[in-house]
This record gives sequence, structure tokens and C-alpha cells, in this order.
Amino acid sequence: MSTPSRPSLTRRTVLRQAVVGGAVLAVPAQAAPLEVPRWTSEPGGPFQSYGQPSQWEASVSRSVALPYADIAPGIGTANTPLERLEGTITPNGLHFIRAHAGIPQVDPALHRLVIHGMVRQPLSFDAATLLNYPMVTRTCFIECAGNSYQHSLSQPRQMELGDVHGLFSTAQWTGVPLSVLLDEAGIDPRSNWLLVEGADAVALSRSLPVWKAVQDSFVALYQNGERLRPEQGYPMRLIVPGWQGNLHIKWLRRIKATDTPTHTRDETSRYSLLMPDGKAQEFPFAIPVKSLITRPSYGQVVPGPGQYWISGLAWSGGAPITRVEVSSDGGITWRVAQLDDVPKEYSPVRFRVSWAWNGNPATLMSRAVDASGAIQPSHKEWKKTFHPTNRFHCNAIQSWSVDSDGTIENVFV
Amino acid sequence: MSTPSRPSLTRRTVLRQAVVGGAVLAVPAQAAPLEVPRWTSEPGGPFQSYGQPSQWEASVSRSVALPYADIAPGIGTANTPLERLEGTITPNGLHFIRAHAGIPQVDPALHRLVIHGMVRQPLSFDAATLLNYPMVTRTCFIECAGNSYQHSLSQPRQMELGDVHGLFSTAQWTGVPLSVLLDEAGIDPRSNWLLVEGADAVALSRSLPVWKAVQDSFVALYQNGERLRPEQGYPMRLIVPGWQGNLHIKWLRRIKATDTPTHTRDETSRYSLLMPDGKAQEFPFAIPVKSLITRPSYGQVVPGPGQYWISGLAWSGGAPITRVEVSSDGGITWRVAQLDDVPKEYSPVRFRVSWAWNGNPATLMSRAVDASGAIQPSHKEWKKTFHPTNRFHCNAIQSWSVDSDGTIENVFV
Repeated sequence: MSTPSRPSLTRRTVLRQAVVGGAVLAVPAQAAPLEVPRWTSEPGGPFQSYGQPSQWEASVSRSVALPYADIAPGIGTANTPLERLEGTITPNGLHFIRAHAGIPQVDPALHRLVIHGMVRQPLSFDAATLLNYPMVTRTCFIECAGNSYQHSLSQPRQMELGDVHGLFSTAQWTGVPLSVLLDEAGIDPRSNWLLVEGADAVALSRSLPVWKAVQDSFVALYQNGERLRPEQGYPMRLIVPGWQGNLHIKWLRRIKATDTPTHTRDETSRYSLLMPDGKAQEFPFAIPVKSLITRPSYGQVVPGPGQYWISGLAWSGGAPITRVEVSSDGGITWRVAQLDDVPKEYSPVRFRVSWAWNGNPATLMSRAVDASGAIQPSHKEWKKTFHPTNRFHCNAIQSWSVDSDGTIENVFV
Repeated sequence: MSTPSRPSLTRRTVLRQAVVGGAVLAVPAQAAPLEVPRWTSEPGGPFQSYGQPSQWEASVSRSVALPYADIAPGIGTANTPLERLEGTITPNGLHFIRAHAGIPQVDPALHRLVIHGMVRQPLSFDAATLLNYPMVTRTCFIECAGNSYQHSLSQPRQMELGDVHGLFSTAQWTGVPLSVLLDEAGIDPRSNWLLVEGADAVALSRSLPVWKAVQDSFVALYQNGERLRPEQGYPMRLIVPGWQGNLHIKWLRRIKATDTPTHTRDETSRYSLLMPDGKAQEFPFAIPVKSLITRPSYGQVVPGPGQYWISGLAWSGGAPITRVEVSSDGGITWRVAQLDDVPKEYSPVRFRVSWAWNGNPATLMSRAVDASGAIQPSHKEWKKTFHPTNRFHCNAIQSWSVDSDGTIENVFV
């Protein structure tokens, strides 16, 4: 981390930067000509029909965790390295994965989506047909209900941000509104729920209220402009904007209209919230308001006293973000951060705030507020809301302590 | 292409769809259980740390054209397959390339950006330093000034959309405002222009007015969330929102503050507009208002009479899009298309309109209008505005004729 520069810096400040940051160099008035490196003196390499990241960015990758690798290698996660990304979009190669039976390679010519149950006419669609239906495009985040598992424990873990909070990604999705498909099948007015099911080997299934299905859910065929990636449900997945990740059924093969929820395994034994009294709250659909400082964060080093820019992400499944506040003194005082864009429903927003560090130990925290009035809770408040063993919907504030040597630790405040 | 379905279809319509589209199938009331394909009966494959597209989408790739392959293989283009994409974002692997000396692999540890000329203090930056500067995020298109070359000729070419118009792509870019860097260097108030230069072997350079530089131009480090791809200027490129593509200097190595434009080769012999009187108009910076129907387009087949959805893209470098109109009768009548999102400055918008095809020959056209009042011209009007040999800034309306057998041709109307 080096010192930024707005408003204008004096010559002295610039030269100090050269010392601290090691790279902003004041060039002497009678400077030698610019060096001519190899890539300026010889032609570059070939054009590729499908491009890949730079060889110098090979470390920017998903971290794969397979807790039962020896008996069930298909159960696992691949986390987005949020601490190495900027803006809000996640490139398709780095979108997080949560899968319960590995990544199926589904042949689009053979795959079918069936709509049945309480409908006038059961229907079967293939992807080629859906491509000609009316479509919508929406940029939305997906967050796994079990994201930030490591942050729900009673002690902070010293891990990079993505390893703790990286079951969170954002893409521009394009697909066919569920309202169109349910209308074509003639859904019975007495049907209030849908059972939605994937074609992977666990046939992951969830119950989805019809009101949310017809309000803004859709069958996505495209992810950031191109067809879905295999690990994101190719050839088709459900998008349920702002709601728990595992409702966004991948490899979608079945929608059954029902009168009541089905209470499947993945909404009873899991993906429900264990309350302090030991009872489970079923169907906690909307992702709660949350924010994270992505830079600086654990694993990065602040090189010395100076002016810095803090950068992070904020989102909510309940309502658009209205404000993000940042503290550098462990929550005693808060400053309102600037936002890169006007917050939109279901899309995360990048926040930034300048920070003058005097070299003394500091604790950086961010706190998001959404238009419903929901405020991101402290770690203590969050723990009190649920049973100690609850691991879902952890949106507790993330705090980073900066030591006087610039190293960063994950702390609970 | 198959028949879509909104508003509600009768049973008879649905069954007709099954015939026409071949894939929406009405399922009998006493249907057999769903087939269990291989991917539902056995575990899927491994998690990848950096994902790739589906094996069934291998044909979705950039088409590479190297006009001087034997003597100068670094001169060429790679076109985005716009006819195979949806939404507005271009995935990083498919962003168009225009390069004059191949794709250099630039080591970020050795690369420097120097700011010099009419400044108080010349400065040199590396990428690691810029990563700690204040940043902005913006979704913008980049269009090569020579895009649609094939469309500027006197006869229509029968080629897929991307091969004609695919030097156009969109990404969410994040980087450091030029205003911050120029302020730090202390730009002389008498400097009205910047010479901006790349580190590739042609050292491509252009003159950029200071007002545009400080209004909204920035040094991009990230593309759709991850660091730039090599072919997009890794480790840093210029983004000049809405202006000619080749001002967005890749592998940016030098910014020289000057009092007048430099009149470099790439703004005199090329990237200027040849007018009817044979004189060249220098510095035609802003990309003119334009739209394209991406589906249906050449190479696709409309399978028979029925209801369809036309989908396309519209953009302007001058002002936000205010309206897109679509004609299916060769420009006699026009209908206002619906837009997927509120149009934003410098970001393209996806438009859609339903189309009832009776099976007779038809001609599909789209026409965009922007907030400055600029209207996309017909092919004839566009040709009249410039010298017959001008090949730049071709924003003439693209027309697709649909024959009674459903095949599509590129036509000039």
C-alpha cells in the first residue's frame, strides 16, 4: 500500500511517497530517455480466440475446499478471492461454487426442464427453445447461505478474506422470466409454492413461493454475456434475486407447482436458522445486509504511516444499500463512505473512504445500512440473535486490526 | 427460433409450438417418470480454481483476422461474436482485440507509467503503486473507430454479425482517475492536450484533450473485477469513455502534457474521417449513435411463421440512448423497443421487441436515438456524409432480410 494523492501534493509529499510506496518516483528534470523493454522492441504474441488471464495473475484463483475429499469429492466449495478483485462484477472463471455432487457436464441437447404439478398443461423445454423466449437482464449477487461460516465461530480465524467470505459473487445474468413459463403452463391459482430441482446427482431441491417466482425470478441462460459456465448450472439455472444462494438451482430440470412448501432436506436439516431456543426458523430467504472491507485485509501489509484508500463491497437481499460507514478506531467513530455507483436492488456496491494512518494500532470496520432500515450487526449482536451453533446468514461486521508494523489481523470487536 | 408465449397461450398454441419449435413439448397427463440421465445418476467432475466455458460452447469464440499474416502477424483483429451473446457485458475471454504489433506480455514489476512534459514534477508509477490510489468503476463500451468496416462498403457482405460489427465490447472497468495523476504531477494550466502512448512495439500514440482526461478518463487496472487481460493492456490501459477505441491506449507507458495536439500517425493517416470533398476531419473522438439486431441475424434461421422476440444492442458515445425503434417492413413503419435497463452514459443497452411473422419476406432494421438528438442514419445517408472510401465511424443502420424459407441475408436499404 502506498500513499495516494488527492488533493494536490507538495513536492515533499511526492518524494516521501517514493520512500514509503517504493514506486512513485520523481523523475529528474534532465532524465535519461525512457528505457525500451523487450515488449516494446519486439512484436508481441498471437491473438487468441478465447483469452486467459495474464501469467502474472496466476495466483488470482478460487480456493477449493473439499471437506470429505476421500469419501465424497463432489461435496465442496470454491471461494471467490474477493481480496484480489475490484469493482463489483466477478469474472466467470472466478464465480464461487458450492456443489454437493461435483460439477456435472450436462449436454444441452439432452437436458430438459419440465414444469408440472398444479398446472393446466405440463410442459417440457430444452435450452434451444428457451433462447427464443422473451428475456430479462439483471446484475445480481449470489451469496451462499453458509457464507462466512468461519466468521460465525467464537474465535476469529486468520485467513484471507475470500477464504472466509468468498461464497459471494456477482454477475450480469440474462434469462427467461418464470412468470412467462408459469403462464404458458397455466399455473393453478391455488398453487402458492414451487418445488425447484436440479439435475445434479443429489437432485438438490428447494421450495420457492410463487409470489417471488413471478415477481423477479428467472431461468438464466447467460452469465456476463456468454452462456452459463458448467459449475454455474449450464445449460440453465434459476436466479432468485437477493435470496439464499441454494435457491438459485443449477442444472434446473424440474419446477413442480404445489399448494404448500415441500420441506425438502435442503430447507429443513440445512439452510434454516437455529434460534437461541433451539428451534429452527425455516425459509429465511432474503440475504441480510452486509459489507466487507476488501482492501486492506488479512494477508496484506500497510507499509507505513500515510494516506490510504479503504475499498470494500456492500449488499443486501432485502433492499438497496443506502449507506456504508467505516470506522478506523474499532467502532468509536464512523465516517460515511463514498459509493462508486447509485445502489441498485440486488446488486452490490463498491465503497471507498480515505484513511490517514498515523502508524498507531488501528481497527478498521465497515457497517452497511439498507433502505428497509436494516443495519449490519456487530459480531456480538449477531451471535446473540442465534443459537451458538448456527452457521447460516452470518452478516456480522468484519473487523481488521492493523498493528504498528502494518500487519493485519482478523479480530472480533 | 421458436414461438414465445406472452400473453397466455391456449393449449392449441402450445401444441403448435411443439411442431414449429421442436422442443416445447406438452407432457401427457399420465406421463412416464422423468428420465434419469447420466449426470443425475453419477457424481460430477472436479472443482476448478479458474473455470472455463462448457465444452458445448466451444464455437463461441473470437474470429481472428490477420490481413498481413505472412509479413506482419501482429497486425490484426479478433472480433467479439455478438450474435452469440446476450445482456450487455462481454466476458473477458471474448473482448475484441485490435492490435498493431501482437499481444505483448508485459511484466508488471518492470512496467512503468511516466507522466512528463508540461508538468511541475515528472513522475513514474508502477502498477502496485496505482493499486493503492483512489479508484472509480464504470461500465463502458469500447468500439474500434474502424468497426463495421465491411458495412461501409458499397455492397452488403454475407457474414455473421460479429464478423462485421464485432470490434465492439463492454466491460466494467476500474482504475485511477487521470485527474488524480495529473494533479499529483502538477499539470501546467497552459497544457491543453496529452500525448498518450502504449508500450507495445508500435508504441501506438494519440492526442487527448485535457478536458476529457480530467472529466472522466482513467487508468484501468481491472476488467470485470479481475486485473486486465494481456490483450486489453495488462498491467494498465487508458479508458476514455465513449470515445474512439484506439484512444484507450493499452500497455500505457507515457502521458506527456503538451500545449497542442501532436498529430501522430494514428490520428492523421488513420482514425480520421475522409469527407466528400477529400479533406480529412481530424479528431472525430466520440463514437456515433448506433444499434444492431443481434438476433435474428445472418447465419440464423427463422423456422416458420409465429411470434418471435427480436434482441439487439444500442449505444452512443455522445449521450445516453433515449429510444430504439425497430422495423420489420424495411423502414416503412417503426415500433419503439423495450429496454432491459435504464440507459446510462457510455454503457450499451439491450433492446427487445416482439415480432409476429406471417411467413412472407420481411426486412428487420433497428434505429437508435440518443439524448443529444442524434439519430442513427440509413446506409444511404451515411454514405452521403463521407467520401466513398471512408471506412471509419460507420454507424449506418443494419438491415436483415428474412426470406420466406426463414433464411437471413444482409441487405442495404
